[in-house]
Amino acid sequence: MTATILAVGSEMLTPFKVDTNSLHVTERLNAIGYEVRGKAVVCDDLDEIVAAFRAAVGRVDLLVCTGGLGPTEDDLTRDALARIMGVDMERDAGILEDLTVRFARRGIVMRDNNLRQALVPRGAIAVKNANGTAPGLLARVDRTIVVLLPGPPREMKPMLDRLIGDGAIPSHGDGLFRRVLKITGRPESEVDAIAQPIYTPWMSQAVPISTTILAALGQIELHLTAAAAGRDAADAVLAPAVQALCAVLGASVYSVDGRGLEAVVGDLLRDAGWTIGVAESCSGGLLASRLTDVPGSSAYFDRGVVCYSNEAKRDLLGVPEAMIAEHGAVSEPVALAMADGIRARAGTSVGIGITGIAGPGGGSELKPVGTVAFAVVAPAARSVRTVQFFGAREQVKYQSTQAALNLLRLLMSGPRG
Amino acid sequence: MTATILAVGSEMLTPFKVDTNSLHVTERLNAIGYEVRGKAVVCDDLDEIVAAFRAAVGRVDLLVCTGGLGPTEDDLTRDALARIMGVDMERDAGILEDLTVRFARRGIVMRDNNLRQALVPRGAIAVKNANGTAPGLLARVDRTIVVLLPGPPREMKPMLDRLIGDGAIPSHGDGLFRRVLKITGRPESEVDAIAQPIYTPWMSQAVPISTTILAALGQIELHLTAAAAGRDAADAVLAPAVQALCAVLGASVYSVDGRGLEAVVGDLLRDAGWTIGVAESCSGGLLASRLTDVPGSSAYFDRGVVCYSNEAKRDLLGVPEAMIAEHGAVSEPVALAMADGIRARAGTSVGIGITGIAGPGGGSELKPVGTVAFAVVAPAARSVRTVQFFGAREQVKYQSTQAALNLLRLLMSGPRG
Repeated sequence: MTATILAVGSEMLTPFKVDTNSLHVTERLNAIGYEVRGKAVVCDDLDEIVAAFRAAVGRVDLLVCTGGLGPTEDDLTRDALARIMGVDMERDAGILEDLTVRFARRGIVMRDNNLRQALVPRGAIAVKNANGTAPGLLARVDRTIVVLLPGPPREMKPMLDRLIGDGAIPSHGDGLFRRVLKITGRPESEVDAIAQPIYTPWMSQAVPISTTILAALGQIELHLTAAAAGRDAADAVLAPAVQALCAVLGASVYSVDGRGLEAVVGDLLRDAGWTIGVAESCSGGLLASRLTDVPGSSAYFDRGVVCYSNEAKRDLLGVPEAMIAEHGAVSEPVALAMADGIRARAGTSVGIGITGIAGPGGGSELKPVGTVAFAVVAPAARSVRTVQFFGAREQVKYQSTQAALNLLRLLMSGPRG
Repeated sequence: MTATILAVGSEMLTPFKVDTNSLHVTERLNAIGYEVRGKAVVCDDLDEIVAAFRAAVGRVDLLVCTGGLGPTEDDLTRDALARIMGVDMERDAGILEDLTVRFARRGIVMRDNNLRQALVPRGAIAVKNANGTAPGLLARVDRTIVVLLPGPPREMKPMLDRLIGDGAIPSHGDGLFRRVLKITGRPESEVDAIAQPIYTPWMSQAVPISTTILAALGQIELHLTAAAAGRDAADAVLAPAVQALCAVLGASVYSVDGRGLEAVVGDLLRDAGWTIGVAESCSGGLLASRLTDVPGSSAYFDRGVVCYSNEAKRDLLGVPEAMIAEHGAVSEPVALAMADGIRARAGTSVGIGITGIAGPGGGSELKPVGTVAFAVVAPAARSVRTVQFFGAREQVKYQSTQAALNLLRLLMSGPRG
């Protein structure tokens, strides 16, 4: 079964704003067996909306459209539906009463504008909106089910779920189900070379699994997608597939359940009963911020220091000035001294030190922009690395935190006993 | 003049990835007088791409399409162009030679696949790609100029600029030019109530200016758009408009030139010759990270500490345990003591302290999740506030850093003399 997703609104045709509703709609439609063949954004213009409807109706099984159902003159989606259905609009008594009650309860005068929201193209079905004034609309045009949803996500999402739940948007035998492996510390080409011999045969098995590689900053994601009758049937093929990939990719897979690296490391720390302190130079507080993004991180995160100046490295971490003079502030001895310093002063189980050149200034021939030394000191383990990262300042910052978190993860999840 | 933008690629129809090329294309097209009436993403399927082309050709003046020009079987955009032009493809000798030279120079064997990239629909013009193997294509179909660009931004952007620069994509009299006012510390409704009487008359003046309000986390943006023959003509109407809005909105406007709040504050610090140290609890290092996102911030950013535990607040900042016991860790006296502590120990001009409850746990009836106290101490100025923020953990973190940066900005840019 095929679907098209449409978003109506001129603001999404500026250089500043993308439509993100369609990501949520795609996920929900995939899960009940629809393949999204295309999506589009159109401006608040009746002819444009009608043209977009016409381009989809008859070609796909389902058209889901968000936005343009509000009370203003700019809100034209319901008019476009009436146009392609070739019918007039009628005032829906039930919707009108809902609106009247809603406004009365809030002590607000209902303006004439809002009466537009009670208009329904003859033959279409109005769908109640639990979280706003704009009702949804549902109609069959040619072979296509057309669903109009309000634009605000907090109104759109529950309405879509309800329409799927009660069968107004029919589910089909097989939904698309996904598992995601998150990988760090290997380049995309290497991940693909290792994984491809494993996943290629899956494409031709009884329940085929398709595999996509997405490379992002500091990590690679492998997305496995299977079409199956339900979550359990999907798991029956996806679980062994995930296992097979983990077996060949080894420790570079850090998550198979959606968790980010900072959450994976946080769980390892919590399980071990360990605490952590971090000392950052080039990453500028980003490592502390990522660790503290995780709810409940106060159980293991004790403190962080951001030491840009050499004086701060001396005062807050006890890094000897002579060491900085001898090796330079960006060096493995200083990274280790920072990790040792924060660990000793905070009295934590783990200390991390990161020092590097985030750029755009500050690089040299010997230590170009992107050079980062990072160290992890933990009970019975110490490790230090120097890596050359590429990209702009914020990218170097992010990759340095990713590499340091991964070094700690590998130290904590390595072979035991 | 009207335009449609198309992106070809099945990966942009998953729940994980949006098309962002179109934002750049929109900006460039707006500047040379095109209004983008719609945009779409289609999967790697010949019929779908052809249908998307047909929906645009004849309706708009310009169709810009990105992606699907690579060497693989999945790359079908040039085939779709041949189909709507109703012509065959021919091998372009110039492109073939470019490809051969390119591969030879890199010592890579050119595979048969790559020969596909030398195919050009008869009557279309191949456009050289300085940064990759996929040439672009240009054709007129019906009244519409159709431009096919490669998908990777580093290939797409320079090719688009060149096509605009040499007139292959014709510029029109009036381009759309924008100015953005960034505002913080006022709710959207208040900004709109103040700004509307100012901007409403602009819509009917000789060179009209349209105004859009975009609300994001911790800030409001006012986008002013004018159609004018060039940057100078646009500035002649936009500059006084920006001034008029600044006059009524006052100090809550922090930027009219695109800078983020951390860069505005950084420039104020640099201009004053001041240094800064920050002490964070609930914001978890995010304030330090935002300040150090700015290139050159090492000139004024000295250090930051992230003190989750009370011991860390005592050890690193000298916050008395009795004060924490009396007022609670989340309180104005503690926020001030944190700001004073980091300022005294770092010897910086400015100290900032932030303490609060980021959630989801840790709230109480008296101090619910989202309660944040923050303080700024600067030469001859000290200020402390308590605010109740809403949203999830990361949203509370971000808003607390935004509010603290803004408090410092207001202290530093207040009326002088």
